[in-house]
Amino acid sequence: MVKTERIHIETRGDCHVVDITAEVAQAVRKAGLADGVVTLFNVGSTAGITTTEFEPGLANHDIRAAFERVAPRAARYEHEQTWHDDNGHSHVRASLLGPSLSVPVEGGRLILGTWQQVVLVDFDTRRRRRTIVCQMVGEAGE
Amino acid sequence: MVKTERIHIETRGDCHVVDITAEVAQAVRKAGLADGVVTLFNVGSTAGITTTEFEPGLANHDIRAAFERVAPRAARYEHEQTWHDDNGHSHVRASLLGPSLSVPVEGGRLILGTWQQVVLVDFDTRRRRRTIVCQMVGEAGE
Amino acid sequence: MVKTERIHIETRGDCHVVDITAEVAQAVRKAGLADGVVTLFNVGSTAGITTTEFEPGLANHDIRAAFERVAPRAARYEHEQTWHDDNGHSHVRASLLGPSLSVPVEGGRLILGTWQQVVLVDFDTRRRRRTIVCQMVGEAGE
Repeated sequence: MVKTERIHIETRGDCHVVDITAEVAQAVRKAGLADGVVTLFNVGSTAGITTTEFEPGLANHDIRAAFERVAPRAARYEHEQTWHDDNGHSHVRASLLGPSLSVPVEGGRLILGTWQQVVLVDFDTRRRRRTIVCQMVGEAGE
Repeated sequence: MVKTERIHIETRGDCHVVDITAEVAQAVRKAGLADGVVTLFNVGSTAGITTTEFEPGLANHDIRAAFERVAPRAARYEHEQTWHDDNGHSHVRASLLGPSLSVPVEGGRLILGTWQQVVLVDFDTRRRRRTIVCQMVGEAGE
Repeated sequence: MVKTERIHIETRGDCHVVDITAEVAQAVRKAGLADGVVTLFNVGSTAGITTTEFEPGLANHDIRAAFERVAPRAARYEHEQTWHDDNGHSHVRASLLGPSLSVPVEGGRLILGTWQQVVLVDFDTRRRRRTIVCQMVGEAGE
């Protein structure tokens, strides 16, 4: 079976880490995928997808601090010169993190660690409504 | 259906960001994939694949600046001591970015944002001819 | 065909780079996958998966040095304040690298460059036994 679902979430930007595990699990259930892979893909170029232990310290502080080292908000970005924009760092961070993540599914469940959640990280400088594609390939349940 | 195509591109190295969206879309069309996933994989260990808004500011300056922070060209690399090579930073950057990207396909088209292109980033220190594998899994069109 | 295998490896932590190419190739052979994709996924939130030229300089020094720039071990992590833990940097590094990697398979073999190996990078601060899921989707051999 091949099936496509979409998740929509509201984000605040500025390195907003959003736990989307429940939404992805729901998409897998809705599609009836028993065994296979769900490929998650963020549509847009200022957010990325990864996993983390979703707790306030990492989600609200530690992940942001690392991206601030890699692509500081206050650095000079040619992107901003060209477009009179303020989100050059958002683009660079999103490209580094990457827009896609593939999670294995077994017996209808995402295979994740106990302290491992699927998260979208929104790097943009304003509120956004995000679309995450869940592309499922595998075998359907009975 | 399962189908493998290969894309070949010429790169300049030194963080050369190359838009390969048209080539990937062409591979999907050629294979006749209607719905599923195309997994892109860079063969080699000094380039990676991601998405970005492909415009000169990000492509020629801002992405390079971030990788220069993470793995500066002028830093000391054990890899270079061992192999009398000059591309230690290229390897490290490629490992961080990652060689693979999975893009969902629906109705024969890549699902991407309006300002989101698929790019290869070549970190090597010289011109290269790159091979990107496009592995497609899904349903064929009628 | 859709098939799930698991690889188990022992790691030392502290940015331990482990070559798992042989184990992944073995999982593909065992499953009988001829053409398709193997999605690798690290179960847990303090290790990631990528590719590199597996040689001592990169594996033991250069990759660690880059992650030390992005998320220094000695920096202040809210995660550690909350949980009286010492592995805030491990979590951040793992989220940046990402837990999953998709490798194309053709004729029963992983498509990799000559100097390109599949590696797990364990960022934790102690020895761990890691589980890597190998989710295979594609066509079986005759």
